[in-house]
Amino acid sequence: MAHKGRQAKAIEALGKLRLHGLVVTHLPNIRYLCGFTGSSGVLSIAAGARPRLALFTDGRYATQIKEEVVGARGVIAKTSALAEAAAWLGKSLPKGSRVGFESDHMTVAIREALGRLSPAGLALKPVAGLVERLRMIKEPAEVTQIRSAVNLASSIYDAIVGDIAPGVTEISIAAEIEYLCRRMGAEGMSFETIVASGKRSALVHGRATATPVAANGFVVMDFGVILGGYCSDMTRTVHMGRPTRKSERIYSAVLEAQLAGINSVKAGVDTSKVDYEARKVIQKHGLGGYFTHSTGHGVGIEIHEIPGLRKAPKRTRKANPGAADRLKAGMVVTIEPGVYIPGFGGVRIEDMVLVTETGCEVLTPTPKELIVL
Amino acid sequence: MAHKGRQAKAIEALGKLRLHGLVVTHLPNIRYLCGFTGSSGVLSIAAGARPRLALFTDGRYATQIKEEVVGARGVIAKTSALAEAAAWLGKSLPKGSRVGFESDHMTVAIREALGRLSPAGLALKPVAGLVERLRMIKEPAEVTQIRSAVNLASSIYDAIVGDIAPGVTEISIAAEIEYLCRRMGAEGMSFETIVASGKRSALVHGRATATPVAANGFVVMDFGVILGGYCSDMTRTVHMGRPTRKSERIYSAVLEAQLAGINSVKAGVDTSKVDYEARKVIQKHGLGGYFTHSTGHGVGIEIHEIPGLRKAPKRTRKANPGAADRLKAGMVVTIEPGVYIPGFGGVRIEDMVLVTETGCEVLTPTPKELIVL
Repeated sequence: MAHKGRQAKAIEALGKLRLHGLVVTHLPNIRYLCGFTGSSGVLSIAAGARPRLALFTDGRYATQIKEEVVGARGVIAKTSALAEAAAWLGKSLPKGSRVGFESDHMTVAIREALGRLSPAGLALKPVAGLVERLRMIKEPAEVTQIRSAVNLASSIYDAIVGDIAPGVTEISIAAEIEYLCRRMGAEGMSFETIVASGKRSALVHGRATATPVAANGFVVMDFGVILGGYCSDMTRTVHMGRPTRKSERIYSAVLEAQLAGINSVKAGVDTSKVDYEARKVIQKHGLGGYFTHSTGHGVGIEIHEIPGLRKAPKRTRKANPGAADRLKAGMVVTIEPGVYIPGFGGVRIEDMVLVTETGCEVLTPTPKELIVL
Repeated sequence: MAHKGRQAKAIEALGKLRLHGLVVTHLPNIRYLCGFTGSSGVLSIAAGARPRLALFTDGRYATQIKEEVVGARGVIAKTSALAEAAAWLGKSLPKGSRVGFESDHMTVAIREALGRLSPAGLALKPVAGLVERLRMIKEPAEVTQIRSAVNLASSIYDAIVGDIAPGVTEISIAAEIEYLCRRMGAEGMSFETIVASGKRSALVHGRATATPVAANGFVVMDFGVILGGYCSDMTRTVHMGRPTRKSERIYSAVLEAQLAGINSVKAGVDTSKVDYEARKVIQKHGLGGYFTHSTGHGVGIEIHEIPGLRKAPKRTRKANPGAADRLKAGMVVTIEPGVYIPGFGGVRIEDMVLVTETGCEVLTPTPKELIVL
């Protein structure tokens, strides 16, 4: 039933933009709206008094569309999915209808093909983020799925953290994490697992390499699983050997910033305020120049969703569409400040939180005190 | 040095299109041209008498650009990579210069932003497949990397095939494959591992699920690794329990088709000819309606590259740009016919081959006789 409710909301959003139809090509949006999980397809929505939807894909998914698609006709395209999706809209809508396409996902080449393929009576209009804005607010069943993904990842972190030791390679830690995730039923990882040790911990996106963990220094682990179609995302940083005063100070500054970020989360708060609160703490410790990314992002079917929690744009709001104005109850976002000192090392601490009317619920159950191994 | 040679070829290709510059936004193309492996960046190429290149990315990659980027200036963008890439081209090129952008990768929204950000004197022109056409022909060092990836995957197939038994879940087979790939040094999998057993083997894209392998029926395994930045891709199908005559006939038809496809590969041969030769065999066995995809595709930095080996387009060549006209020596392609009978099961057999002047070299060393477990 969730899918039909989402379809109704999408159609309502189309109406507000005075659009009569939509060509959905972004696969996570297709999945969200009608349940189809295949790797290729186009969903056409014809709004109006009696809205109709049709999903077009190819012969590989003949069985799958029967099992998965809800609230839309499933069609195996004889020519191309895009061509038949456009032709179907031409037949389903009156002449002069305005049909949106996803301009933040559709390539220029596909847009041109769509123009050639669309019946003369349709006017194509760029639309950005229509389905993504619906996806920002998670339904209770989605939150349940996300909780399961978060808990799975946390339990695996607990299981492997004790195995980290000098000489163990980053890649073997990543392999262990990924293997357990799979064995525990995850469909896959949300993104390339990051295991960055020693000086490499200063690389924000330090994919696991054959580097062995040194006897001394930080190890940053950032990973997530996909479970039931929803992503998780967590980062913890441990220290090998006794940390220096400097390392301790960096860690506690990041933790303080992370807690400040969490404490600022609440429905109605400006998204940039969360970034501001976390960043302020790191600046207070004289480390502002080493916090080189934004404080967080939405998570759901995709690992990076809106809203972004980042600095308020200097000029106009329009320059920064990922920074949805204000947090709303039901959003799920990461809070993940970090400090990265080139040639020394880095620390990042990341939880996922559910925004509520009165604050937030931290979904990630893993403790955040510095673990020394 | 390879990167500088590639840059020279890209600049030569720009010249043939009467373009003075190029904005490269597709990450595999950026990696190919200058070595940068980060997850975000824009490469600007200013052609002309003294060509220059500059890669724009963000603060997360400050260390990485120093280590990786060859033949291009590495710049940490203060505003946005796209804005600075456009501004740099404006400064580097004379007024009235024609600058290409990758229309088959750039979204409509980014194209519009690029238009706003580009200095008035530049004329933006859509270009499709310019770098991809260079990437089609693999350099010897690339073939070596691909061989390593192929051999790694094959050795892992050998290691796990004996563990497949009734009751073992598809996902645990996939987990085993992926774990060993990681432990053997792979950066990751080329795509979501397919393990499809019993009736699920009729799903062309049957991602591994919690389904236990039955005592009888086919199990299709399709997976690949990324090693040193290059992908591999292989499929083998085994049979649980004694196969029926029907199953044996299906398997041998697919194998015959796969060998016919391989035998037709040679520099100068039309890409659709390979599809035709494989498909003809399956049709001869009365199974033509069950071979629902194309025969193969290029493989390299990406898992799906041009050329596509598919049916000749009915009308014009232009309708099917992925079907590069003719095979050339140095291309690496998959040959992977299959037969999928809904409610019964399916078979696919896939190797990677290197196109040569006299035929091809099969890179995948794994035998193809039907294994009965």
